[in-house]
Amino acid sequence: MSEAAVGYTKEHGERFVEELKELLRIPSVSTAPEHVGDVRKAAEFVADGLRAAGMEKVRLIETSTTARKGHPLVYAEWLHAAGKPTVLLYGHYDVQPAEPLDEWKSPPFEPEIRDGNIYARGAVDDKGQMWMHVKALESLLKTDGKLPVNVRVMIEGEEEVGGEGIAAFVREHGDQLKADAALVSDTEMFAPELPTLCVGLRGMIYTELEARGAATDLHSGMYGGAAPNPFVALAQMIAQMKREDGHIAIPGFYDGIEEPTKAELEAWRSLPFDEEAYRKHEVGSTELTGEAMFSVLERTWSRPTMDVHGIPGGFIGAGAKTVIPAKATAKISFRLVPGMRPEETFAKYKKFVEEICPKGIQVKVTMIHSGEPIVVSTDNKYVRAATDAMAKVFGKETVFVRGGGSIPIVGDFVRELGIPTVMMGFGLPDDNLHAPNEKFHLANFHRGIESIVRFLDGVGAGS
Amino acid sequence: MSEAAVGYTKEHGERFVEELKELLRIPSVSTAPEHVGDVRKAAEFVADGLRAAGMEKVRLIETSTTARKGHPLVYAEWLHAAGKPTVLLYGHYDVQPAEPLDEWKSPPFEPEIRDGNIYARGAVDDKGQMWMHVKALESLLKTDGKLPVNVRVMIEGEEEVGGEGIAAFVREHGDQLKADAALVSDTEMFAPELPTLCVGLRGMIYTELEARGAATDLHSGMYGGAAPNPFVALAQMIAQMKREDGHIAIPGFYDGIEEPTKAELEAWRSLPFDEEAYRKHEVGSTELTGEAMFSVLERTWSRPTMDVHGIPGGFIGAGAKTVIPAKATAKISFRLVPGMRPEETFAKYKKFVEEICPKGIQVKVTMIHSGEPIVVSTDNKYVRAATDAMAKVFGKETVFVRGGGSIPIVGDFVRELGIPTVMMGFGLPDDNLHAPNEKFHLANFHRGIESIVRFLDGVGAGS
Repeated sequence: MSEAAVGYTKEHGERFVEELKELLRIPSVSTAPEHVGDVRKAAEFVADGLRAAGMEKVRLIETSTTARKGHPLVYAEWLHAAGKPTVLLYGHYDVQPAEPLDEWKSPPFEPEIRDGNIYARGAVDDKGQMWMHVKALESLLKTDGKLPVNVRVMIEGEEEVGGEGIAAFVREHGDQLKADAALVSDTEMFAPELPTLCVGLRGMIYTELEARGAATDLHSGMYGGAAPNPFVALAQMIAQMKREDGHIAIPGFYDGIEEPTKAELEAWRSLPFDEEAYRKHEVGSTELTGEAMFSVLERTWSRPTMDVHGIPGGFIGAGAKTVIPAKATAKISFRLVPGMRPEETFAKYKKFVEEICPKGIQVKVTMIHSGEPIVVSTDNKYVRAATDAMAKVFGKETVFVRGGGSIPIVGDFVRELGIPTVMMGFGLPDDNLHAPNEKFHLANFHRGIESIVRFLDGVGAGS
Repeated sequence: MSEAAVGYTKEHGERFVEELKELLRIPSVSTAPEHVGDVRKAAEFVADGLRAAGMEKVRLIETSTTARKGHPLVYAEWLHAAGKPTVLLYGHYDVQPAEPLDEWKSPPFEPEIRDGNIYARGAVDDKGQMWMHVKALESLLKTDGKLPVNVRVMIEGEEEVGGEGIAAFVREHGDQLKADAALVSDTEMFAPELPTLCVGLRGMIYTELEARGAATDLHSGMYGGAAPNPFVALAQMIAQMKREDGHIAIPGFYDGIEEPTKAELEAWRSLPFDEEAYRKHEVGSTELTGEAMFSVLERTWSRPTMDVHGIPGGFIGAGAKTVIPAKATAKISFRLVPGMRPEETFAKYKKFVEEICPKGIQVKVTMIHSGEPIVVSTDNKYVRAATDAMAKVFGKETVFVRGGGSIPIVGDFVRELGIPTVMMGFGLPDDNLHAPNEKFHLANFHRGIESIVRFLDGVGAGS
């Protein structure tokens, strides 16, 4: 019965893209206080889309955390497939900040199609992929008048800021999300034309390390040599945490790490991965870095790491200001792998920086957000339905990979709801996630919709 | 004859302060392109003040450097004291940026008098002190109709950005500045009520160290572990350059340094300096830092050092952005002491960072500006005239100190014009130079004017 729905996806494909453009025009940057209204506008847009698709009980669910009022969740359901499994569709409508703006070829919130790709902040992460879900539901409901399985939809607006709101909701109202499996499209294909399921994600802690020295900004001529410099202190602490060979020197940092199985490592080695092409075309640096005894895929999938994202404070204007700033703050994150727990890693890190804190400096470490690392089972009918669906659409066998990034909610689905998650994503390695000129390959947008239609159909048929 | 002029300074003292307030209202921030017009306005204000004082040939001299069009110099002269020496009065009308604005108790460009101090950006550095010169000239010319010596005035608008314009002018048109000595009031008194001459200044190089890794900003989840992080690289390089004990590890950095004489060190030890009070009330940190085997005065006057002023680039907004930035730039300066040359130090630093540059990173080192370190002789009639003048005004013997900061032009006066400089300053240690809540103690403004009147008179009488 999905053939009619597949036909519908093709017939209405152009309209789907136009709708996506509208959604991409809303700058729903969840981390920016000035965009609170835009984030809500995007939530309303998604809710309207779900209503138009024929979903039921569509509503915004307000969230809040201790730190602040949160962005709303968008909920919808269709539960009339008696005896069939229930699939929870997850996505997010919030996006990363678009800065640095001057590196975008077209403005980040004015979607533009070039060479078969749609360029905009959020194109692939995750508005475009989330919209595939909405359009797959519409295609099924408009042609068959019903869905092949029971479906709940939960779209969040805080994925890019740690997803605390949805995590709290899942924890406290798990009964309202009762399902047998979740489908998430927020990952990428390993290579163009290569259908891919992601079966593991790194976790993370995102922190701020603040260093305070003098009581006020001081003239570096008059006080240089005697007054503590918080930027130098941060540099000294960061250099002690991360060695040049990529090893993280925080005591106990690697304790308890679960290595990938031999079979998994073997499968990774057979993936079409060209390290030199990756260096040249994806990273674009003179050399790759990190732990030389691990392959690049291991370094980015199954090894923890540490990165510094920015060091606000001090003088950042053009030219010169001879100041010893009173304080500086480094934005530092760690990616975690199975066997590591965010709170434990944070505690080790905090203890270490407090121990190595240079003379005259006071440090404060703050956790901004965190997510658990996860690995999911590949041995269940939902994964089989996904690989079957993609085999039909792409005509190829699916590869299993892990992702280096974090989708914190997947861990919550496992832990709180006890359900497996199928991470079937349609991004490409060069889609510029979190970077200027983010894009989504439009062919994959359409194939994604068809794959989701076939996946839901397959789950319904197979049960 | 200076007694009439001294009487005039007291009679008109209140007006002098009102005029200074007007000058302080002009945000002549020389490093900020958006304030180019304000910088010129301040130059015009100073020129008008010199004209009103009765000075001759008052004019703006345009400057330019290879990098950009410069801010104008203000020139004036009065050369009718036949047979008397010529004194070159130097000051600057440009100011440091006022940021961080939220730490000012009253707005930086709305001067406010509290507890006998005038608060504003530039109050003491150097508008207030430069205005003392203009008012001393006015007081002499309005009462005696003439000056006791020949005077040239040269006020610049680029001191806070390296003073390249005036340096070029001195180099190329030294004949137009022919003088026997220079008077500079851009330093501070060692302690309240303690008349002070500064006889040495550190030099500096102000640089930008740019690190580039990936070709574009990358998602730290997807690429963390394999892509070079320019912030981590800068931290690693900075930590290798400056050890926690304050030692700078650049090879050859300390080569050729001229130590202060035993007599000078002895004199420093007898100065009223309380290290604990300095730590607590001036610096406000939990501990002082730097080379423990040197006293604090040595560390800030006669030892070179390195500071980081800011590290622009990356994500500096509120919250989190999981990005590996393509580039980061550290603003790094070094203070130099006699025996060191800016170009040589820069070359050693550049060579070292290129050597230690981590894998996958490309560095670029840029010199923003530089200044030579200097020491001036204390054995001449100009220094004696200055100590005599301050003895009359303060009723105390003058102490000789050095300054940790740089006034690049003083080196040029020595090298290009071959003249000694008297650095007679009236700031106080807690005047917050280059920091929020900069102030000038008004009693010192008035005593400064009187001291300059008596100094010029003394030079004239003694010759």
